[in-house]
Amino acid sequence: MPEMFQVLPPVEALKVLFDQLSPNVMTENVDTAEALDRVLIEKLTAPSSLPSFPRSTMDGYAVRAKDTFGATESLPAYLNVIGEVPMGRGFELEVGLAQAAIVYTGGMIPPGADAVVMVERTQKLDAKNIEVLRAVAPGENVIEVGEDVKEGEPLFDSGHILRPQDLGGLMALGITKVTVAARPRVAIVSTGDEVVPPEQTPGLGQVRDVNTYTIAGLAARSGGIPQQKGIIRDDYDCLFSATREALDTADVLVVSAGSSVSTRDLTADVVNNLGKPGVVVHGVAVRPGKPTVLGVCNGKPVIGLPGNPVSAMVVAGLFLVPLLWRLQGLVKPPARQRVTAILAHNIASVTGREDFVQVRLVERESELRAEPIFGKSNLIYTLVKSEGMVCVPLDSNGLHKGERVEVELF
Amino acid sequence: MPEMFQVLPPVEALKVLFDQLSPNVMTENVDTAEALDRVLIEKLTAPSSLPSFPRSTMDGYAVRAKDTFGATESLPAYLNVIGEVPMGRGFELEVGLAQAAIVYTGGMIPPGADAVVMVERTQKLDAKNIEVLRAVAPGENVIEVGEDVKEGEPLFDSGHILRPQDLGGLMALGITKVTVAARPRVAIVSTGDEVVPPEQTPGLGQVRDVNTYTIAGLAARSGGIPQQKGIIRDDYDCLFSATREALDTADVLVVSAGSSVSTRDLTADVVNNLGKPGVVVHGVAVRPGKPTVLGVCNGKPVIGLPGNPVSAMVVAGLFLVPLLWRLQGLVKPPARQRVTAILAHNIASVTGREDFVQVRLVERESELRAEPIFGKSNLIYTLVKSEGMVCVPLDSNGLHKGERVEVELF
Repeated sequence: MPEMFQVLPPVEALKVLFDQLSPNVMTENVDTAEALDRVLIEKLTAPSSLPSFPRSTMDGYAVRAKDTFGATESLPAYLNVIGEVPMGRGFELEVGLAQAAIVYTGGMIPPGADAVVMVERTQKLDAKNIEVLRAVAPGENVIEVGEDVKEGEPLFDSGHILRPQDLGGLMALGITKVTVAARPRVAIVSTGDEVVPPEQTPGLGQVRDVNTYTIAGLAARSGGIPQQKGIIRDDYDCLFSATREALDTADVLVVSAGSSVSTRDLTADVVNNLGKPGVVVHGVAVRPGKPTVLGVCNGKPVIGLPGNPVSAMVVAGLFLVPLLWRLQGLVKPPARQRVTAILAHNIASVTGREDFVQVRLVERESELRAEPIFGKSNLIYTLVKSEGMVCVPLDSNGLHKGERVEVELF
Repeated sequence: MPEMFQVLPPVEALKVLFDQLSPNVMTENVDTAEALDRVLIEKLTAPSSLPSFPRSTMDGYAVRAKDTFGATESLPAYLNVIGEVPMGRGFELEVGLAQAAIVYTGGMIPPGADAVVMVERTQKLDAKNIEVLRAVAPGENVIEVGEDVKEGEPLFDSGHILRPQDLGGLMALGITKVTVAARPRVAIVSTGDEVVPPEQTPGLGQVRDVNTYTIAGLAARSGGIPQQKGIIRDDYDCLFSATREALDTADVLVVSAGSSVSTRDLTADVVNNLGKPGVVVHGVAVRPGKPTVLGVCNGKPVIGLPGNPVSAMVVAGLFLVPLLWRLQGLVKPPARQRVTAILAHNIASVTGREDFVQVRLVERESELRAEPIFGKSNLIYTLVKSEGMVCVPLDSNGLHKGERVEVELF
């Protein structure tokens, strides 16, 4: 007989789990060059101004702007060229009255000068003299000290996921090391007397392990480090010792449960004995995925997934993904990619439960249509053939053909 | 004096580059478990049917459906229980007339049976006999052989990027190795007499290297393996020998050019001498990023980026990203994440050029607004402070405040 589930909506179930976890984030100090897509766990301000010297944005002549005032093609300003500012070095001379110095894009504006005349707006008279054919304003074609970022200016908040341009911005200021969230190690244990490793040819009644690989993929995409712990028999002692050992060297334990009611109870029993408080949620108002187990054992979160491939993916998306981001210091996981589409068929549901339905996306008459792929939640290929999922919310009893729906891509 | 650019629109420039490349894709054979986010370069069909035996989707009794026809709570069908189908094994007996066998979710349906009665719809009379309280139809609560996928059915086309569920689907069929595109090795050379490594304190007139890191990040996100080749002086011989060496062990060469006109010519000269045909595009109708160099040297693509951080990112996004996907067998790169937003200010442009403007996204009165961040393209922090880019198309002379625009996130 099935046990009575105390079934919580997914959002509430997640809250119950999070409430049992320490708010502390495990961190590590890494090279900025290696920190792409990591979550920054420090608040950074600019240690110095950028640029640290005024720079030219053009190839041309650094001048005192007022020496060019009124200059035109017919009435040019005459300037004396005192030298060339070499790239990557300073300049010993000061640009004085009616003087100019050759500068290149990115080069330093020498003392005395406050603007740059583009080379195209000048005419060379001889090696030492030029005509300026158009006036420049003070600051024209110049990047001022601190124009990019000023010393002490806030750069990043804690919880920022580092993008390619952020690495560049940090390097520009000489911040070559950063404190980021440690990547959570996710131990994945598959159970089931019928489950065999993929490289083995299944005998009669046997199936190959699927969930270890789908869950590892999801964990990796959420910043986790998957640890594949193999397949454990549906036996309390075996499962208990395998999961206890797995938790020792992991930050999160995922048990892909056997799919029958008896083996579901096994996961809950094991979680209750692995550490305190044990199971905190047993059963979630979601389909597929109702027989989900959420637990915490001595500070480490444990997720018991239903054995069906589709249920396992849906539940891992609802709980493992936000959990991994939360362990990396993010209150809200990064938004998954979504598109809006027209629903091609009705989806029936019942209120009081979130339903997740896989859909294929089809472009028809320049309109994106979401075609539900109905199929038993045991079928891995309904996931393979779909491009995303549609959620029927808790308070809805279904979605109608022709409705605009949000499709979360995966 | 600046050279005359033969300026092509970005799409055409990319086509010129692609036309010079071999259509062949370099591949490697990898473990499916390690193939997340890799591009599959083979067409796969199912080597066998899945499941390979009929499975129960419920805990209950495997029966001959017709033996239950007409059964109700008041007039149940009486069946004789001949045994239990163990998980992961076959069953030696055949279910005959008025017989039943205990089955668990995921277990095998024994010979003779064609449906499963849920345990909740039965009543136990004694160890060997049950009452069935509701009829089942043939096939009810059963996954038929091949219901997930049939032997010979197409699974994936070449060019598919492998997702977590795809790995699971492959493993389910015992496909533990796959042929995927090799990850292109991207050698990144920074040039500039003013550029110093980030760990060094810049002297007067010097700046730290930024582009090596932003480009490495972009390359990694596009499936490439960045190889950081350091900073090379603005000198033909130095650049030539450094890039020739870099190309030897890379599939793509990116030169982040010095920003002055003279050093831009340097990149083009070097590319023309590294191999045939050399430079194929010099100058692109894009802002920022006009002085882009695209070349092919003995079959290997070379991209000469403008030195400014923003220009370098824009140009790498337009050319390096699709190039890397193309080298991995994708004609079209995967869609970048986009959102629609209301433009908060006018953006001026000119026709005949694509303009890319960084924007910050701000939620105001439940409406997403895109606020352009105007700034010289030399400023890395305009990229850091923005969440995406808006493109002003080739044939437009600007976008208006209040317009709905597509923002490509980065």
